[in-house]
Parts: sequence; structure tokens; C-alpha cells
Amino acid sequence: MDIAMIGLGKMGANMAERLHRGGHRVIGVDPGEGARDSAAKRGFEVSASIADTLAQLPVPRVVWLMVPAGVVDQTLAALAPHLSEGDVVIDGGNSYYKDSMRRAEQLKGEEVSYIDCGTSGGVWGLQEGYSLMIGGEATAVAQVGAIFRTLAPGEDRGWAHVGPSGAGHFCKMVHNGIEYGMMQAYAEGFALMQHKTDFNLDLAQVAKAWQHGSVVRSWLLDLSADALGRNPQLDGIAPYVEDSGEGRWTVAEAIDLDVPAPVITLSLLERLRSREKNSFSDRLLAAMRNEFGGHAIKTR
Amino acid sequence: MDIAMIGLGKMGANMAERLHRGGHRVIGVDPGEGARDSAAKRGFEVSASIADTLAQLPVPRVVWLMVPAGVVDQTLAALAPHLSEGDVVIDGGNSYYKDSMRRAEQLKGEEVSYIDCGTSGGVWGLQEGYSLMIGGEATAVAQVGAIFRTLAPGEDRGWAHVGPSGAGHFCKMVHNGIEYGMMQAYAEGFALMQHKTDFNLDLAQVAKAWQHGSVVRSWLLDLSADALGRNPQLDGIAPYVEDSGEGRWTVAEAIDLDVPAPVITLSLLERLRSREKNSFSDRLLAAMRNEFGGHAIKTR
Amino acid sequence: MDIAMIGLGKMGANMAERLHRGGHRVIGVDPGEGARDSAAKRGFEVSASIADTLAQLPVPRVVWLMVPAGVVDQTLAALAPHLSEGDVVIDGGNSYYKDSMRRAEQLKGEEVSYIDCGTSGGVWGLQEGYSLMIGGEATAVAQVGAIFRTLAPGEDRGWAHVGPSGAGHFCKMVHNGIEYGMMQAYAEGFALMQHKTDFNLDLAQVAKAWQHGSVVRSWLLDLSADALGRNPQLDGIAPYVEDSGEGRWTVAEAIDLDVPAPVITLSLLERLRSREKNSFSDRLLAAMRNEFGGHAIKTR
Amino acid sequence: MDIAMIGLGKMGANMAERLHRGGHRVIGVDPGEGARDSAAKRGFEVSASIADTLAQLPVPRVVWLMVPAGVVDQTLAALAPHLSEGDVVIDGGNSYYKDSMRRAEQLKGEEVSYIDCGTSGGVWGLQEGYSLMIGGEATAVAQVGAIFRTLAPGEDRGWAHVGPSGAGHFCKMVHNGIEYGMMQAYAEGFALMQHKTDFNLDLAQVAKAWQHGSVVRSWLLDLSADALGRNPQLDGIAPYVEDSGEGRWTVAEAIDLDVPAPVITLSLLERLRSREKNSFSDRLLAAMRNEFGGHAIKTR
Repeated sequence: MDIAMIGLGKMGANMAERLHRGGHRVIGVDPGEGARDSAAKRGFEVSASIADTLAQLPVPRVVWLMVPAGVVDQTLAALAPHLSEGDVVIDGGNSYYKDSMRRAEQLKGEEVSYIDCGTSGGVWGLQEGYSLMIGGEATAVAQVGAIFRTLAPGEDRGWAHVGPSGAGHFCKMVHNGIEYGMMQAYAEGFALMQHKTDFNLDLAQVAKAWQHGSVVRSWLLDLSADALGRNPQLDGIAPYVEDSGEGRWTVAEAIDLDVPAPVITLSLLERLRSREKNSFSDRLLAAMRNEFGGHAIKTR
Repeated sequence: MDIAMIGLGKMGANMAERLHRGGHRVIGVDPGEGARDSAAKRGFEVSASIADTLAQLPVPRVVWLMVPAGVVDQTLAALAPHLSEGDVVIDGGNSYYKDSMRRAEQLKGEEVSYIDCGTSGGVWGLQEGYSLMIGGEATAVAQVGAIFRTLAPGEDRGWAHVGPSGAGHFCKMVHNGIEYGMMQAYAEGFALMQHKTDFNLDLAQVAKAWQHGSVVRSWLLDLSADALGRNPQLDGIAPYVEDSGEGRWTVAEAIDLDVPAPVITLSLLERLRSREKNSFSDRLLAAMRNEFGGHAIKTR
Repeated sequence: MDIAMIGLGKMGANMAERLHRGGHRVIGVDPGEGARDSAAKRGFEVSASIADTLAQLPVPRVVWLMVPAGVVDQTLAALAPHLSEGDVVIDGGNSYYKDSMRRAEQLKGEEVSYIDCGTSGGVWGLQEGYSLMIGGEATAVAQVGAIFRTLAPGEDRGWAHVGPSGAGHFCKMVHNGIEYGMMQAYAEGFALMQHKTDFNLDLAQVAKAWQHGSVVRSWLLDLSADALGRNPQLDGIAPYVEDSGEGRWTVAEAIDLDVPAPVITLSLLERLRSREKNSFSDRLLAAMRNEFGGHAIKTR
Repeated sequence: MDIAMIGLGKMGANMAERLHRGGHRVIGVDPGEGARDSAAKRGFEVSASIADTLAQLPVPRVVWLMVPAGVVDQTLAALAPHLSEGDVVIDGGNSYYKDSMRRAEQLKGEEVSYIDCGTSGGVWGLQEGYSLMIGGEATAVAQVGAIFRTLAPGEDRGWAHVGPSGAGHFCKMVHNGIEYGMMQAYAEGFALMQHKTDFNLDLAQVAKAWQHGSVVRSWLLDLSADALGRNPQLDGIAPYVEDSGEGRWTVAEAIDLDVPAPVITLSLLERLRSREKNSFSDRLLAAMRNEFGGHAIKTR
């Protein structure tokens, strides 16, 4: 198929390359010269102009958005004048699913199909393929099925049309919530082994032993084994953990639906905690202990 | 009554003084010269010798232990040769309740009564009285009732014979678990208000408004209002929170009894967290994010 | 002062009575005949009509709203035609603080002052007074100061003008978050004691001992002691705990502000958990254990 | 090699069969006739007598214990008279690592080597091999290396000599703690999707899409996909989740080492929660809400 890939960041450029390798014609679009230059070396066409790009694509057009959640609306506004009836726009980024539902509804008025596609796999997707959770109307999904089959790890593996508009990004949101919980579980376990200094455990060795046959084997464990193999004490890495929006949305959604999700929730809060510099709550606890028990306060 | 107070630390010296003020004859015993000197100014007798002290007391003797949990066994070993049938020993410290059960059983063989008395109130107990949770045999508790009535906030308020040996320290253990949870709840709430910078809230003012009529009014809130009044931003206080044994015992006991106690448990874990310098789990999370998503790592 | 109390539910009727007892002229307004009839016996005037009521009040008028958060906007819409420059409207209910900020802004356009007043104290406020957290402009707050002084537990106790519009309901929101955490801490502690069957503890007796002198003394403990005194095993009460909006808002706000509040958050999730009938997550856990370990599944 | 497998339960019988298939001579020992009969069909020898079995093995003997943690001591007592210098005993079960350290020390006095081998893989290990975490002295581990190579998924994959006595069971303990956390994360995520009824998600389909290319792919996900594929609504499964000792030990160890492990800890508490019938803490919460706010109590 012919496809415009809007956004040539880490994810977009890799996906464009995988599609190009898979025999599709890809025009990558990015306003950044650096992004375009480095993408150009990957073999597919690049352009700075949405208008030019869409003019070159056969109708009905297929446009894949791979831009930060915060700029989807403005990207759609730039796209809109160039879209026509029958075109398909796919948002492969990490948009909030309710935004995707709203956007699908808006474009429906223009007879343009909007597909929300949750995309997992990170920087490894180029080689291993991406897991794709797809929301939207069945006819539109079928129309661009060839693209999903190329991006996924296999023709019929690692992708699914999971439901109507929004369902794709909803599943991706939950996926990331689960990811937070799994990561935190491993992190706590390895930290515990690291603190058991009398056994002088080689954490990479333990991780490797678990990679085959154990109940906890997983891709995240594979990555942990690699990271620990290269840097057993994780020297030079700050204990500072970012979060993106999906974890927060998952926590909020769970509460909205009255579903207790304590582990996913705590995993998010631990990330907030990792970024605190001078916790006010801990200082108040210390102050209270001093008030009632005369317990010494540590000064800074 | 005549009573030996073994241990003249912050708690022991205050309790000895309250008993002395209440008309009891108190001999305070402590191996530390400094502790004895400062206690001597409070009006009651002091001594460095357990043997001398017990020799001076009328039989049956009443001995109150107010020493750290870790030295109760050795203190009892020092006491034992000087005890005789009918004596009553009260452990008013924060001993593990199963240790108290064992000790009571041992002393029973010597016809000595052993009472475990959980004591709450901190440095304010001297003026306000102590809340006392008492475990042991009814006859022994009755024998020394005059002491409990003096230490408590009122003749018949703030103390109770709650059950057999161990029950007193068990209730004190749970009391401290609850204390951890309450403190953490306040700490989180005030931290949230402190972070809401657009409202520029005066936390001491809010705390004071809550002291009267609100659902969250409590003595810990009174103390928080005082602390925030004197130091609104808690300047100079390190975000470092100690824990003593009772929180850990509460968490372990809850799991032993299959009682989920997530808030008390988390409150303990938050204290551990406050003391971490370079969390390995957070560093592993950052490393994993870098592995799968190429997300930047913050270096130290 | 003269004041209209809109909403004669449990809270509104009690507050109207406390104001009436305090020498204010109160007209209570409620569309429900039952509510009006029962309020009428409390001594103050009642009316079914907002229009009539406002027509009777001297200008500038003072109107207190005590209605569910969900109907504030429609109540304001009904009020609006009858308000004039200089009037003061106070929302004493549990509105979301951002809604209060919006409403204050809207009414400002009409030269009407809008005050958000977080009100704590429950059904006991009639006798003991209410803790009031007030947000809005200083001149408006001063204008109706006599009302706050009457509702509060004392002239200058238990109420505070904490900040601009929204700040009052913000503090009330946090107050309720703290309340959730404190309640959960007590609940876990008492559950632990209840499960320690070998000690056969009398929970009301323990609660009473803690009421005087202990670190955990509080009004919630007083209420717990009462409840346990009347019904020691809490017979006939379902383990089903409702939540109102404030806990959810507190959790969301904490995450928005990057403030980890694990105990308040978990306290909310425990309430969700209490209302689950056939937890899907627990069933999946059981299914997974069966898959990997052949562990037996309990059937329903 | 020649080996005695003591204990022919689900795990022991499978491991004996895998060793037998791998060319080792195995004598399976179990006091239960049923266990022996069903094991006999698997091709290896069986016996009811430890004494007879050990008499048949060439010296130095290799004995693998695969019995519940609670009966290891008594099994060792039965074994002891028949062991002689140079024999190797391997505990492949889920013993507490400190017990393993003690046992190794005791047998060292008899010149018998004791190896603690954490074994993961469940009922799938027969076909896929077991992940083995081995603690003990290097010479003993080398002596029985052929056994580990057969049981593991590959000659040099899925097993490791991780440290001195106790280290093997320590790592297995932590492994299971991580397992609890991962399982809980998946369970919460799938529960959230199940409650999002507007999307009518096919959970097995989502799980399958995640199995290839996603960040959350894992063996536990594979099993979840299977379970959901066979029983999409998990009908007939009670929301009742057992725990074995390792989770509890992990939680206790983390606290002992001052390592905050909130997610692993909460995962254990959620299992306790799943088994509560009439939560006292929830009833007390409901009672408190009624006390202060007059909120209705649900009766049973």
C-alpha cells in the first residue's frame, strides 16, 4: 500500500522503515530537518509538507499519525483540508481513548475513517514487530489490513481489531498500566536480592536462570537480564522514574469503573515518589514523632 | 504504694515523677549517672543498684520496667535473684507481646506476677496521663491498681485490664500500627495542600480550623497544628522517618492472622522508603524504560 | 443576620436550626413537603419557593446552599433571576473545588459574591458546631462573618478563611481524603484485634482506654468506641462501604500534583473492593494458579 | 546418574519422569500407594522404603527431596540413618531459606552435602524443563551437575548456582514474590477491561494480540490467554486465591532488610482479602460513617 507516516520520531521512523522493508511505499513527514535527514537514510521517501505528501498519495489515502498525544489535534487540523471522502487516518500513538472516540466522530462527518491503534514494542518493534490493538469500524480496518500485517510480528500474530473507536487506545492504556505493575514487581524483587548482601548474588545470573522455564519469564525479564548484565549495580543511573499519561489514565479509569487496581495504582505512585526531592509528608511525619515522643529529628 | 522504676529515660523518668507527684514512694534505678542526676532533681529517690533498691522496698514488691525492648531479658536476669514470692513486675515498655507471654510464664514458676502494660502518651504523659493497656492475671492487676490509676489521665479513664498475659502489649502494638496509618494520612493530606501553590494555603491555619468540629480532629492533629504553627514549611527537617518495632510486628501479625491491613502496612513501607538513599528498584525501572523504549536515563 | 438556607436535608436542616438558635432569622427552602414539614418543627421559617424567600430577605441577601453537589448548578440557575448586586451566595456542600471556582467567576459578572465553604461535622454539628473552611474574597467573607461564627464550635474556633475561591472546597476535599485514611487505619487495627481470638479482647473497652492519653485519641475513635459499645461484633452490618466524591477527587488531585498519597489512595480502593461481588481479578488469579501449578480452583 | 526422588506428588513425579527420560536411573519413593501406582506407569522404579532405596544406590548417593516444606525435617530424620559420607541431598521444594541454611549446617557435620534448589515451572516443567536456582558448595553442585542439566530447559540454560547454602531458596522465594506482583498486575488489567462493557472486549483476543511484540508478553500472559480462551468470563471459578509461604516470606524479608516492596506486599494482601467472608474492617467503616454522618448501613 501507499502510506503517509506523519511523525518521524523514534517510533515513527522505525515503523516507516518496517513498512518500507515490507514492500509498502512510505512517505515520511516531519517538520524537523534533523528527523527527516536521519530518516532519509532508511530508504523511504521523506517530506516536510503534509499537503505535498497527501497530493502524491493515491485516493483513498492512508495516513498514519505517530506524534505525541499532545499534538494530535493540531496535526489533524493541518491534515483536514487535504483529506477527502474514503481516506483512512490511523492514530498509532498513545492518545487518550476518549479523545480518539471524539476524533473518530468528528472525521466521520467528513466521511473519513479514523482508526485508533495502540502500538506496543518500543525500539525493538523494527526487528520484532509491533503488538497492535486496533479500534474502529471493521471496513476501515479491513481496508488497511495489509499495513497491520506488516507492522505486526507475523501475518496473523500480535494484532487484533479489538472493538469500536476508542477500544484500541483503551487496551493500550490498560497494557501500559499492567506494564507499570510488572516492572515494579521485578524492580522490588531485584532490589531485595541486591540488599541480601550475605549471598553476594549476581543479579544478571539469576535473571538469566529465570529466562528459561520459570513462571516469571517474560520479555521485560529478558531486558532486565541484559541491563543487569551490562551494569550489575546500575551505576550512574539516577533513581528517577518518569511516567507518561497511560498509567495515570489507567488509574483514573479503574476508579471511575469501581475496579480496585491497587498494584497498578501503587506502581504509578512509586514513580511519583521516585521524583520527590524533599518530601513534605516525610518531614511532617518526622515532626509529629518529635512532637509526641521527643524523637530526634534528622536535620538536612 | 512503694515502687521501683527501672529505667530513667524520657519515659521512665516522667512516669516516676507522675507517680511521685501522685503520692507514691518511687525509687528510680538507672545505671547511667547522667540519667540519675537529672532524675534526682524531680523529687523522687534514685539509685544505681537494683539490689539495694529491692532491699528497701516492702514485700511484696512492685517493680516497673521502663527499658528498651532489647534489654528486658537482661534486666529481668539482673532482677531475678532479688525477687521473691508475691512480687509484681510490670513491663511498661514496648516489648513484643509473645516475649511478654514467655516472661510471664517463666516468672510464674517463681510465684512472681508479671504484667505487660502497653503505655501510650509520649512526653505529654507526665502532664496529661498515660493510656494504659494491661495484660496479666486479675489479682496481680488489682494488687497494683493504685499505680495504674495514678499514671492514667483519670482514676477510671484511659486504662483497662484488657486480657491475659500478652494482651496488653498486643493492644499497644496494634495501637502503634494505627498510629502509623493516621500519621501517614495526615502527612499525605498536608503535603497535598502544600503542593497546591495557587491557593497559598496556611497549613497551620487549616489544621487549627480542623481542631474544632471537624471529623478529623484528634490529638495528632493538635500536634501537627503546633508543629506547623512554629515551622510552616518544616524547614531544616530531613524527610527521614524512623520506625520502631511495633509497626513491623503489627504488619507481621496481620499477615499471620490473614487480616489484610493495607494502610498500616503501606505506612510502614513509606517509612522504609523515606530512608532510602539510592533506590535500586527505581534505578532498575529507569534502566528497563531505557531498554524497551529508549527513554533517557537521568544520571546522577 | 437574615439568611436563606436552600436545602433542608440532614445537614441543611441542622445548620438552619443552629443559626436560628444563634439568633439569626432563617428561612429554610426545600421543594420537598416532607423536608419542610419536619424542618418547620425546629422553629425557623420554611418555604417552598426560592422567589418568595429571596423577596422577603433584606438586600444585600445572604443565601446558603446545602444541596447535593450534583444539583448545585441547577439550583444556581433557579436562584440567578432573583439575585442582585451585592448579594452573597455560600455553597456549604461538598462541591468539587474547580466547579466552585467557575461558579464564583460566573457570579462575579453579576456582582454577586460566591463563597465556597467546606463544612465538616456531620450530624453532630448541630450541637458541637461545624468546622468551616472558607474560600472567597475577604470582603464577602467579612460580610457574612456572623454566620460562620454561629455555625462554628466557637466565635473564633473551628473556622478559617483559607484562601481565594475554591480554596475552601479544596481543603474540605483533602479533609475527607485524610478522613478515609484515618478510618481505614482504625478499621484495620480493630479487625486485627478482633481476629486475635485467644485474647478475647473487648474492643469497646480497648477503644475507651485509648480515648484518654493515647497517641491515637480522636473524635473518630470516640465514635468507634460508641459503635463498638453498642454492637461489639458489629452484627447485622454488611461489609459494604460507600464513598462520596471527595475521596476520588483527592486521589486524582494528588496524582495531578505529583504528590504520592498511597494511604489515602488505598483507603479509597478498599471501599471499592468492599463493594465487589465476584471479583474478576481474583478469579483470574485463581485461574492462573491452576494453569501453571495445577492448583485446585474453588468453585462457586 | 542414579538418584532417589523422595516425594511423588505433582512436582516430584514429573521431575522423576524428566530425569528418567533423560537417561538417569531414578527410584521414586513415596509412602502413598496411590502416588506410587500412578508413578509406576511413568517408567521409573518406585519404592515405599527410603532404607531399601538408599541401599540400592551406588555410593556416594544422590537424593532429591520433593516434599512439602512442612515435612522436610521429618523426612531428613528418616533419611539420616541411611546416609553416609559424601552423599548429596538436594531439597528441590519450597523450603524457607533459613531452614535450608540450618539443615546444610547440620548435615555438614555428617560429611553429607546439602543443596537447596529453588524449582520453578509448575506442571509444565516436565515438557519445558525447570528453572533451577541452586545454593550450596561448588563441589557438591558440580557433583550432581548432570541432574540439573537434565531438569533444566537446556544444558546451559535455565539453571544457575547462585550462591552458598540458602541462596537457592532465597532466590526462589523472591521469584515467587515477583510472580505474585505480576499476576496481580495482569489480573487488575484484565478486570478493568472486563468492566469496560461498552467496548465488549474479547479478553482472550486482547491477550493473544499481546503475546507477540508487546512489552507485557510473558509466560503468565500465555497462560492467561489460554485460560480466557477456554472460559472467557471465568464462569464457575470462585474469587478465592490461595497463597503458599513464599509470598509471606518475601514480604517479611523485605521489611527485615528495609527494602520497600509495596507491590509484592499488596499482592499478598489482596489474596488474604479475596478469602475474607465478612470483613470486620469494612463493617467498622460502615458503622463509623453511620455514626458521624448518619449514612445508611447496609444490612446483611
